[in-house]
Amino acid sequence: MSGRDAAIAYAHQNRDRFLEEYKALLRIPSISTLPEHAGDVRKTAEWLAEQLRAVGLPKVEIMPTGGHPAVYAESAAVPGKPVVLVYGHYDVQPVDPLHEWVSPPFEPEIRGDYIHARGASDMKGQILAQIKAVEALAQQGGLPVTLKYLIEGEEEIGSKHLGAFIDAHREQLACDFVLNCDSGIHRADVPAIVYALRGLAYFELEVRGPKKDLHSGLFGGSVHNPAQVLCELIAGMHDAQGRVTLPGFYDKVRPLDDEERAELARLPLTDDEWKVIAGARELWGEAGYSVLERIGARPTLEVNGMLSGFTGEGSKTVLPAKAMAKLSMRLVADQDEAEIHGQLCRYLEAHAPKTVEWELRELTHGRGAIMDRHSHYMQAALNALETVYGSKPVFKREGGSVPVVGMMQQKLKADSIMLGFALPDDGIHGPNERQYLPKFFKGIDTYIHFMTSL
Amino acid sequence: MSGRDAAIAYAHQNRDRFLEEYKALLRIPSISTLPEHAGDVRKTAEWLAEQLRAVGLPKVEIMPTGGHPAVYAESAAVPGKPVVLVYGHYDVQPVDPLHEWVSPPFEPEIRGDYIHARGASDMKGQILAQIKAVEALAQQGGLPVTLKYLIEGEEEIGSKHLGAFIDAHREQLACDFVLNCDSGIHRADVPAIVYALRGLAYFELEVRGPKKDLHSGLFGGSVHNPAQVLCELIAGMHDAQGRVTLPGFYDKVRPLDDEERAELARLPLTDDEWKVIAGARELWGEAGYSVLERIGARPTLEVNGMLSGFTGEGSKTVLPAKAMAKLSMRLVADQDEAEIHGQLCRYLEAHAPKTVEWELRELTHGRGAIMDRHSHYMQAALNALETVYGSKPVFKREGGSVPVVGMMQQKLKADSIMLGFALPDDGIHGPNERQYLPKFFKGIDTYIHFMTSL
Repeated sequence: MSGRDAAIAYAHQNRDRFLEEYKALLRIPSISTLPEHAGDVRKTAEWLAEQLRAVGLPKVEIMPTGGHPAVYAESAAVPGKPVVLVYGHYDVQPVDPLHEWVSPPFEPEIRGDYIHARGASDMKGQILAQIKAVEALAQQGGLPVTLKYLIEGEEEIGSKHLGAFIDAHREQLACDFVLNCDSGIHRADVPAIVYALRGLAYFELEVRGPKKDLHSGLFGGSVHNPAQVLCELIAGMHDAQGRVTLPGFYDKVRPLDDEERAELARLPLTDDEWKVIAGARELWGEAGYSVLERIGARPTLEVNGMLSGFTGEGSKTVLPAKAMAKLSMRLVADQDEAEIHGQLCRYLEAHAPKTVEWELRELTHGRGAIMDRHSHYMQAALNALETVYGSKPVFKREGGSVPVVGMMQQKLKADSIMLGFALPDDGIHGPNERQYLPKFFKGIDTYIHFMTSL
Repeated sequence: MSGRDAAIAYAHQNRDRFLEEYKALLRIPSISTLPEHAGDVRKTAEWLAEQLRAVGLPKVEIMPTGGHPAVYAESAAVPGKPVVLVYGHYDVQPVDPLHEWVSPPFEPEIRGDYIHARGASDMKGQILAQIKAVEALAQQGGLPVTLKYLIEGEEEIGSKHLGAFIDAHREQLACDFVLNCDSGIHRADVPAIVYALRGLAYFELEVRGPKKDLHSGLFGGSVHNPAQVLCELIAGMHDAQGRVTLPGFYDKVRPLDDEERAELARLPLTDDEWKVIAGARELWGEAGYSVLERIGARPTLEVNGMLSGFTGEGSKTVLPAKAMAKLSMRLVADQDEAEIHGQLCRYLEAHAPKTVEWELRELTHGRGAIMDRHSHYMQAALNALETVYGSKPVFKREGGSVPVVGMMQQKLKADSIMLGFALPDDGIHGPNERQYLPKFFKGIDTYIHFMTSL
């Protein structure tokens, strides 16, 4: 029996114990955004550190950051094999609305094939599955690669100290690639692997007209209405083809080649299906691109919020003093958030009339990323998924942002392999978060296959 | 000493008490648009009724309407003199943004020569000044005209039950003309008298995109953002010359003749002065018209409010399901609000994309009006103003709406004499509304002069 087969057999034999450990991990309410749970967050870090020690890793540490601590671990070096940095997070989202939970969020309950608890899918199940795969390998012949672990406690609050932490420990974290377990497979029957993520540049724009709110009858028609100006500015940010008009916005966007377009077209998703998922009347977007290309490979600009004047019930005849919009761009790999900021400023300088003042504030940003689909590591991930799920995975570009992926590319020059197993209907961030248990156990098998294929 | 002089002397002797009564009236938060203030609105009606009884009017009633009640009163008939229907309103606008008020809106505070409170200028000060003039005349020889009062509680919500009320009490309200105290003098040193008012058509427009809020990363670029669509629709409602683009919008607008333009040009108001009053960086408006023509003789379209998506602190990556705007048009005489409603619908039908649904609700409307500048009553008003202010008043068209003026023309066949004393920088409808106290006292004198000149 090969080391791989022995590890898989071991994993299957120990499922009951793994499940009990999974439950124990889910019972600790590691809500990172609530100060009253800081002790629980730390307790979770210690629980994971203990697991990694039990696996036999020679170096396991709980390391301070500017906020919640990070769990770091390192295996003995395996000569001739890649160094893999396993990334995950052990913190979870808050649980409100609490009354919508069928069972209490930190008392894991199995109903049918699902385990229900906060963090079951995002992402205690996934990081534990990876550790259990390592345990199985360690018990049945030893590790096939050099492993490092970075499990942070602040992902649900924007990973705000992670960048500085990586900067301060660049050598220690050096690796050939990152195994990112905080991701999904999209559909259990046709798993997809994400190889590109969009970045984000999020701004608040305020347009200021008269010093104070005016009577729209007494002054209307003689003073430029800042809500109207804001509308004109926003309206001008897209052209009739749905393209963003900021100067230079597409300059750094990597064009899609025919091979990649063909690969994206393999994803089993029709426009009609997407329309139903989105709850939209009609689809919309940049001319010349499919839905999956639009959300995965093209940068976009959205109005996330807008506020001006009187918005209560009934009528108030006010000419508002100011108008605000939250605007964000989803960026693709190679677009730089600072350059985008500059483009937005130049657009506003060119188009805002002298009748108003404007102020632009950047609220948050993160890099997009794209990984090499043809790398040895990516092929190993594909093979592992195909073996465990029984169908050939497809490549997918993701519209959302996982800032840590861009950060790893920028700071560690390391691509990420996204090999988590969340599904869109796991209910992450909402009430009754759940994990389909067969998927948890398949996840362990997948990680064993992956690590033994490198 | 003539009755007029005695009344003026009485008014001057009683200024301190009048000021205390003014404060008492300002303390009642009669916000007609907010259901939780319905009791305060009624209390204000009762307070005014009590004042009118104290003046000695033989008939004072609080009369039900379909909404907030109206205060009606009647003096004994004075043979050979005109019957004057005094019109005013006792309700006020909401107070938001509350945090911008220096002193609480319903705790009147005197700072320098100004009293600050919601309703100080619009129009509790003005209706009280008229009643105090009547008190002075009644105390010093008796009333020189037959008086009727109609003080409504729904002016700030579009006088929505006033039309039906007037229809139901047409004989009771019969008069030679209406003395409308809900108006301004434009500048204290060169008072102006308003002979034309704009009408109003106020709408709420909702644009609906996806069924619920979406994640802007997962869906951005594939679904039309309803906030963006709303911006595009609003941006298209004006052309580059500041003209409103609704189809047929200017068809019924009466052009200004040379004589009227010359009369309007006599008003001592420079663009720079208007800029200061408005607190604007630059003026703006329809090409080819002066500021006074823009606000008095030309219809306009304003955004009064706008709301969509996430508007709190920080960032939320949402693609909103809907976007709302409050839009209103100021109309000039002869424009019909139902036709304007139709024009807005036709504009939306022509320009809204199929990716969204839209719904337009009319919230309130009122007719514009224009009065004969050469009538006997108009001349008496001019003389009273000239006597009290020491300079010859000029004629003015008003940008605001007093729908009741058009309604009185339509239903009672009575012109209105606009003899209020608000100034453009009183801050009505906004935070820190104020009244210049010397103007309040001069207002009492003006009403005494006017009533004794008829």
